Amino acid sequence: MNLQRVADKLDISLTRLQNLQQTVIKRSSWPEPRLLRFEKATSGIEAGTIIFENGEIVHGYPKIRRAMMLAAALRRHFSDRVAVEEKMNGYNVRIASVDGEMVALTRGGFICPYSTEVAEQLVPEKVFHDHPEMVLCGEMVGPENPYVPKEVYPTDSIDFYLFDLSRKGQRGTLGVIKTHEFAKDYGLKATSLFGEFGRERAYEETVRIIRSLGKRGREGVVMKDPDNKVSPLKYTCSESNCGDLEVAFRYYNDYALDFFVSRAVREGFQSAEWRESEEERTARALRLGKSILFPMVDTIQKKIRGEQIVQHVQIKVKSLQTAREFEYHLRRSGMKAIFDPPEPSDEGYIIRIARPIMSTNDKTQALLEGDTW
Amino acid sequence: MNLQRVADKLDISLTRLQNLQQTVIKRSSWPEPRLLRFEKATSGIEAGTIIFENGEIVHGYPKIRRAMMLAAALRRHFSDRVAVEEKMNGYNVRIASVDGEMVALTRGGFICPYSTEVAEQLVPEKVFHDHPEMVLCGEMVGPENPYVPKEVYPTDSIDFYLFDLSRKGQRGTLGVIKTHEFAKDYGLKATSLFGEFGRERAYEETVRIIRSLGKRGREGVVMKDPDNKVSPLKYTCSESNCGDLEVAFRYYNDYALDFFVSRAVREGFQSAEWRESEEERTARALRLGKSILFPMVDTIQKKIRGEQIVQHVQIKVKSLQTAREFEYHLRRSGMKAIFDPPEPSDEGYIIRIARPIMSTNDKTQALLEGDTW
Repeated sequence: MNLQRVADKLDISLTRLQNLQQTVIKRSSWPEPRLLRFEKATSGIEAGTIIFENGEIVHGYPKIRRAMMLAAALRRHFSDRVAVEEKMNGYNVRIASVDGEMVALTRGGFICPYSTEVAEQLVPEKVFHDHPEMVLCGEMVGPENPYVPKEVYPTDSIDFYLFDLSRKGQRGTLGVIKTHEFAKDYGLKATSLFGEFGRERAYEETVRIIRSLGKRGREGVVMKDPDNKVSPLKYTCSESNCGDLEVAFRYYNDYALDFFVSRAVREGFQSAEWRESEEERTARALRLGKSILFPMVDTIQKKIRGEQIVQHVQIKVKSLQTAREFEYHLRRSGMKAIFDPPEPSDEGYIIRIARPIMSTNDKTQALLEGDTW
Repeated sequence: MNLQRVADKLDISLTRLQNLQQTVIKRSSWPEPRLLRFEKATSGIEAGTIIFENGEIVHGYPKIRRAMMLAAALRRHFSDRVAVEEKMNGYNVRIASVDGEMVALTRGGFICPYSTEVAEQLVPEKVFHDHPEMVLCGEMVGPENPYVPKEVYPTDSIDFYLFDLSRKGQRGTLGVIKTHEFAKDYGLKATSLFGEFGRERAYEETVRIIRSLGKRGREGVVMKDPDNKVSPLKYTCSESNCGDLEVAFRYYNDYALDFFVSRAVREGFQSAEWRESEEERTARALRLGKSILFPMVDTIQKKIRGEQIVQHVQIKVKSLQTAREFEYHLRRSGMKAIFDPPEPSDEGYIIRIARPIMSTNDKTQALLEGDTW
């Protein structure tokens, strides 16, 4: 790797790059190709940015800021028109081609063997044949998404939805218009584009969309500048905020505390901005309260019955090698997971995975035995 | 101060005491008498332990552990009988006499000028005349409690309820029986003692008491060993947990995050242990959800109307000097507070105090202006 050229492309000095290699840049030598990844954002370089062994760079996908008071945020953030797209609830991957091989990169900058196998099946080779420099930014969703399994999308396995494009070695993305054109040209699925609205009408349209998405168990929207001049904003449905809380409280001793407060605060702002009636606000309070209380009671009752607190997920793979590699990938990411023996299915294997939720499991057991808090 | 004698009384070496003076022991020279206080627990010495200039020691009041699964905790913790006392919702003070002067000490080990004035009015001089070594441990409660103002106690100002006794220079407390006898002998109010129960019956009795206290807006109970051989346990009402959440979410950006989760988790364990029906559990979820959502919406609406987010409290003092000193005491404790001019009342002055809740105020304002999260 020619470090001077990499530094030039990253727009930092060689010395700076060398210093970063002692701190925020981590080496990953598996699976091939080997790479360096930025574990944190620094010097204007996004976290998850990758430098491959051949010197090619894939920039990290920028974090999207969240609107809390929607109308005010739309007014303040956008200058003219607003494109409203669905925000899907899965995990973010960037798919690129390196030395002729397709790789799917996680948010943190690892190559995920499972996502790579999924990408190889869903992304036509023609994409990278025509555009070897392209990076497909999108969401992996569905029930066989091993991180956030969701039944609400039209797939019984896992699917990839494009939501942005970028180019290797280049900062920034190509924006909503080019992304949807590209998806159409190559027969890729893209996240739903609900429309483009004037900044003033965007509020009521987005609220209408959010209500409808919420009823269907979907997550929310990303609002983008059609001219791609300002960064996007996100906004989520009450049902999705509460869904996050359900997970958080099912595993109350394992999930970060601030996870919780942020979701609850979103509910406060949405309720205030929507000028809810007493009845609507009470219904929201009940939804919020249930999403906290019920999964927690469920966990405690499970433990009273002597069951372990475990999260079950499954994936489907073409090759057993992918399953073995994915197991290793989870382990290096610090995730405990127990893989069942593979079950042959139509065109490959179903792998059931159990993720023990250790801290909640042990804490609940101890409290049931009379431990104090 | 003879340091060797102090070290002996604390049961640590002189060197250890001298080392602690560089770290956890802080000096407080106002108001008189001057003292050293243990800012943190160390070497088996409770946080809030005080060494007065004359060498006398008042030990910190021990932290009481919380039962989460009540029946299991009672079974595990107590060997025989359990005395159930009310846990009152105010602030903890220790009242002692030093060089013939009464002082009220905060949990952290400061002399509070306001609490001292209150103590001087409520504690007969005979108490310390007869027992100069006694330390009265109790709760200051009522609407003119400037930290946790509550209307649910039978006072329209502030009152002191004894809940334990200790002796200067001695670790440990004298226990529930001696405390109530002492209160009776000297005409002091003591926290309600609901009864003494066998360990097995204590669960159902406590649940009955908790339900009844909850309906009256009270906080909960402390369960004590009548023989004072094992440390007490506490347990609180759902209404009180939710009341804490109301405060936390009214000032959602100022209060510690873990404050929140711990209250919610208590609700989960209570609901599971009480084997609530679907209807009861739904009612609890609604109460929980409302306690989070409604105060937050209230704060946001206040800010929309252009009001400042401020907490109003008031105290009543005999002397204006006490008010000035209390203002200084709050400031040194790191609390922002704006004191209104004193209003003469029956036997002294009413002082209204506004506590600006800066972080929530500013954050809400910024979000209303379209800031992102």
